[in-house]
Amino acid sequence: MHLPELNIRLPDWLPAWLERHATRFPRPEARMALVIGLARENVARGGGPFAAAIFDRRGELLMPAVNQVVPGHCSLLHAEMLAIALAQQRLGNYDLGTHAEARLELVASTEPCAMCLGAVVWSGVGRLVCGARGEDAEAIGFDEGPKPADWVEALGARGIEVTRDVLGEEAAAVLRLYAGRGGTLYNPGGRQPIPPKR
Amino acid sequence: MHLPELNIRLPDWLPAWLERHATRFPRPEARMALVIGLARENVARGGGPFAAAIFDRRGELLMPAVNQVVPGHCSLLHAEMLAIALAQQRLGNYDLGTHAEARLELVASTEPCAMCLGAVVWSGVGRLVCGARGEDAEAIGFDEGPKPADWVEALGARGIEVTRDVLGEEAAAVLRLYAGRGGTLYNPGGRQPIPPKR
Repeated sequence: MHLPELNIRLPDWLPAWLERHATRFPRPEARMALVIGLARENVARGGGPFAAAIFDRRGELLMPAVNQVVPGHCSLLHAEMLAIALAQQRLGNYDLGTHAEARLELVASTEPCAMCLGAVVWSGVGRLVCGARGEDAEAIGFDEGPKPADWVEALGARGIEVTRDVLGEEAAAVLRLYAGRGGTLYNPGGRQPIPPKR
Repeated sequence: MHLPELNIRLPDWLPAWLERHATRFPRPEARMALVIGLARENVARGGGPFAAAIFDRRGELLMPAVNQVVPGHCSLLHAEMLAIALAQQRLGNYDLGTHAEARLELVASTEPCAMCLGAVVWSGVGRLVCGARGEDAEAIGFDEGPKPADWVEALGARGIEVTRDVLGEEAAAVLRLYAGRGGTLYNPGGRQPIPPKR
């Protein structure tokens, strides 16, 4: 049996893009603005309209990421997943909570889907900051998956603080930009989204 | 900034292990028995007590996988995630529902955690077959994450049929074997599990 491998890496344009931007952002809005900029650039490069990044508590960028489902031929390659996996490789530990500058913060341009919600819990980050709402992703046709209605409280119960709606309108504008360009809606089978109970 | 990569691959012992086993299993119990055998072998090799595999509708093994969180330094490397990601690489498509022998089936030695539940939805598989219950994983100390109480129905609404408790007792025995050997409980921060609402 042929056993393939999957090499997870950031796109080739990303290092040069990062060189044109700061790497330390004391204000939460500035961290989100960087992530929204990454999402917008990913759309311009033909990728999905989602980005995420992990910052330490001084606001230093530890790991940026963008959605790579379509170019990577892999439904797991959401931006949050790449940010978590590559930050863990950088630190050499499956628990980001062991970082010297803990608690680390995950900034996501859109609220996490069902899969990324679980991944946030396992990652060891201490904070989650979101831009656009899950409803904004559904509005352009992305399913968000089976996510409990009380997901913010479920993260809180596991010691993860959640902040929503940071530059939410700017973040949602990137989703609408993608939809307007006819971007691929990669729900399996081309299904329409099924809104969760809220 | 150093941008690391993560190469996802199966452990070195797996190809030789596969050569000692059949690759086509018409009966669901036989498919589950293979997956439980993989989980047991992974424990013997120092890995986590979870395995998963994807089969086509003739019962042909398309992709086996084992949990690699600890050796891979990555909290996302649950068995289901590897099986999905590597099957998608094998087919060159982010939607396994496009496979000629669809609907593909994911067999998991234990019911999916919150993250893997979402990943199953995005994968494009048409069936999920589970061995041990989520409660069995919690009983040895693994958190299952924020998973909706109606997760079976949520998969059904998305066209994914779920079968539970296939060789459940044998599958749970592998979890207890791992606990008895003092296997690592890699919940972030070493937290205790928080049982979901059921």
